[in-house]
Amino acid sequence: MRLKTRLTEKLRIKHPVLLAPMGVMAGGKLAAAVSDAGGLGIIGGGYGDADWLERQFAAAGNARVGCGFITWSMARDPTLLDQVLAKRPAALMLSFGEVEPHASRIKAQGVPLICQVQGMKYLREAVEAGADIIVAEGCEAGGHSGLRGLFTLVPEAADYLSKHSPDTVLVAAGGVGDGRGLAAALMLGADGVLVGTRLLASRESEAPEGFRQAIISADGDATVKSNSVDVVRKRYWPNPEFVVRVLNNSFVSKWHGCERDLEAAIDVEHERFWTAFAAGDADHSGVLMGEVSGIIHDAPPAAQIVEDMVAQACRLLGSHSGCVVR
Amino acid sequence: MRLKTRLTEKLRIKHPVLLAPMGVMAGGKLAAAVSDAGGLGIIGGGYGDADWLERQFAAAGNARVGCGFITWSMARDPTLLDQVLAKRPAALMLSFGEVEPHASRIKAQGVPLICQVQGMKYLREAVEAGADIIVAEGCEAGGHSGLRGLFTLVPEAADYLSKHSPDTVLVAAGGVGDGRGLAAALMLGADGVLVGTRLLASRESEAPEGFRQAIISADGDATVKSNSVDVVRKRYWPNPEFVVRVLNNSFVSKWHGCERDLEAAIDVEHERFWTAFAAGDADHSGVLMGEVSGIIHDAPPAAQIVEDMVAQACRLLGSHSGCVVR
Ligand SMILES: Cc1cc2nc3c(=O)[nH]c(=O)nc-3n(C[C@H](O)[C@H](O)[C@H](O)COP(=O)(O)O)c2cc1C
Ligand SMILES: Cc1cc2nc3c(=O)[nH]c(=O)nc-3n(C[C@H](O)[C@H](O)[C@H](O)COP(=O)(O)O)c2cc1C
Repeated sequence: MRLKTRLTEKLRIKHPVLLAPMGVMAGGKLAAAVSDAGGLGIIGGGYGDADWLERQFAAAGNARVGCGFITWSMARDPTLLDQVLAKRPAALMLSFGEVEPHASRIKAQGVPLICQVQGMKYLREAVEAGADIIVAEGCEAGGHSGLRGLFTLVPEAADYLSKHSPDTVLVAAGGVGDGRGLAAALMLGADGVLVGTRLLASRESEAPEGFRQAIISADGDATVKSNSVDVVRKRYWPNPEFVVRVLNNSFVSKWHGCERDLEAAIDVEHERFWTAFAAGDADHSGVLMGEVSGIIHDAPPAAQIVEDMVAQACRLLGSHSGCVVR
Repeated sequence: MRLKTRLTEKLRIKHPVLLAPMGVMAGGKLAAAVSDAGGLGIIGGGYGDADWLERQFAAAGNARVGCGFITWSMARDPTLLDQVLAKRPAALMLSFGEVEPHASRIKAQGVPLICQVQGMKYLREAVEAGADIIVAEGCEAGGHSGLRGLFTLVPEAADYLSKHSPDTVLVAAGGVGDGRGLAAALMLGADGVLVGTRLLASRESEAPEGFRQAIISADGDATVKSNSVDVVRKRYWPNPEFVVRVLNNSFVSKWHGCERDLEAAIDVEHERFWTAFAAGDADHSGVLMGEVSGIIHDAPPAAQIVEDMVAQACRLLGSHSGCVVR
């Protein structure tokens, strides 16, 4: 069973499910697994690291995959974009920051442009730049997000697109963990979903085992949006509207709201943080993950996640018409 | 056409749509209109005012309506609860605060107990207290809400209930503005929806005309969660997790983040705020409204809102099964 939508047509994929370009965590192996399962894998280029990108495209082998960047960070070294475009990616995704001049360069190469937006302001910019696919990201998402909730952003974005750019395809991101989320996203007006946290807790992700276990253990109340994790990593995000959602672990509960003190202790803490990260210590580093952790209880192969999600959505879409009484 | 769900069965109503008990704004007239249309109207008892409640139950006439309170505020004068229970309401809804001993008193009278929850912690308390219906409220909602987004809270709450309290009915609140929201809520695992902002912008609400127009004009990016409006009204909320979502108007953009300064000027500002409120001035008072304002473009009769919502949900639930390919 499968779902045919404008997204599956546009990207010529079987299932309307995209892997979120989770920086460092969505590598070539996971991207290939999602593409092989019928979705589209998008390598998480994140802040941008040429060597890492080479290794991940190699790891993806012959699978047809895309790549995503944190736009403002990649913009400091746009040769990263050239490097990736040279690989003829299935799509290039930009999130967080001015889309031009990158959007034009991507489109000039005939590569489908995906823009992730966190509110109507960003949506209008992305449409202006000619995005082929818009990912509407809600603030329940893992990693960085804006202020809007997914439940209202999707229908409002759908209305805007149908009026101003009817060929642009809409994807929902933030909180999609199973077929319920996929079916709900379609009802709200999306053509598919982009999935982060659920695929982070999969066999093929680059997440250390401790991070996977943290997602499995956490309920959905266990995350928080906190600048502490960006401060300690010296990631200086230019737009304060974008705050990262992480597990509310020992590190975060110590420093959240005390970012000034953290800056004062930055040399020691920066070192400590990355040492813990390298050790896969989910309690003393930063675990980027979303509220959807509350419905995640295992870490199966990515293909199983994608297939179960689609099968459940199909069942729901079929069965719920049964509560309609004429 | 109609939707039959566990909510319609439990409350013996035609449509799985509840009016949110919006303090002062959801009066007897609006509650009656929603009930007459086949949903359930819930009078917005808010902080609690005996005279206002008398007038609103009178205004509801013979319509079968419920009533809701802000729990921590009502708890300061529990005779308000007796006053309402004496009217044999169709349901009593508690939000924000310790549910006991009120829950037991409501249940002892045989009145269905509805508890609005903003996260798993509150859900567990409400189940413990024997809630008949749980409203899972997402932070995109108008008025006060917690930290969780609706898109993840609903499926997680549904899983919890099916495991620990399978007869408890689940309702989604926050961002439901049309049939897309209703259909999505059902997909996520809810049995119906509770609707605030969309029904605030209706003919029968107590909203001043300026507030209705503000909702119609605003896009979904135009609201913000801000304590300024509680500070100026001297509403001292005991739990800082609950912050009110309002239009980001002149008043809010002046004082948001400067609540200390506002307190210093409180005598003048309190007076000014309420004068503006009484005049229906949506720019210099506080307009409680949700992100769903972005898909609201009119203020029709409540019955039309309810009927259109259900009809659209039915269409979507039927038609989307069409994208399932076997
Ligand atoms: C570990 C992690 C890292 C992320 N890194 C990025 C990133 O580098 N670039 C980006 O555009 N989005 C990033 N995101 C956000 C995702 O693109 C997506 O919006 C989000 O994962 C969707 O919400 P979900 O996690 O609930 O599925 C990241 C998310 C996670 C969980
Ligand atoms: C004007 C307004 C006043 C509200 N007052 C209350 C209240 O007194 N008690 C309460 O439980 N919820 C109150 N709420 C929240 C609603 O119960 C409900 O959760 C919310 O309206 C749902 O989101 P929506 O506005 O997007 O439909 C209020 C909401 C609004 C818009």
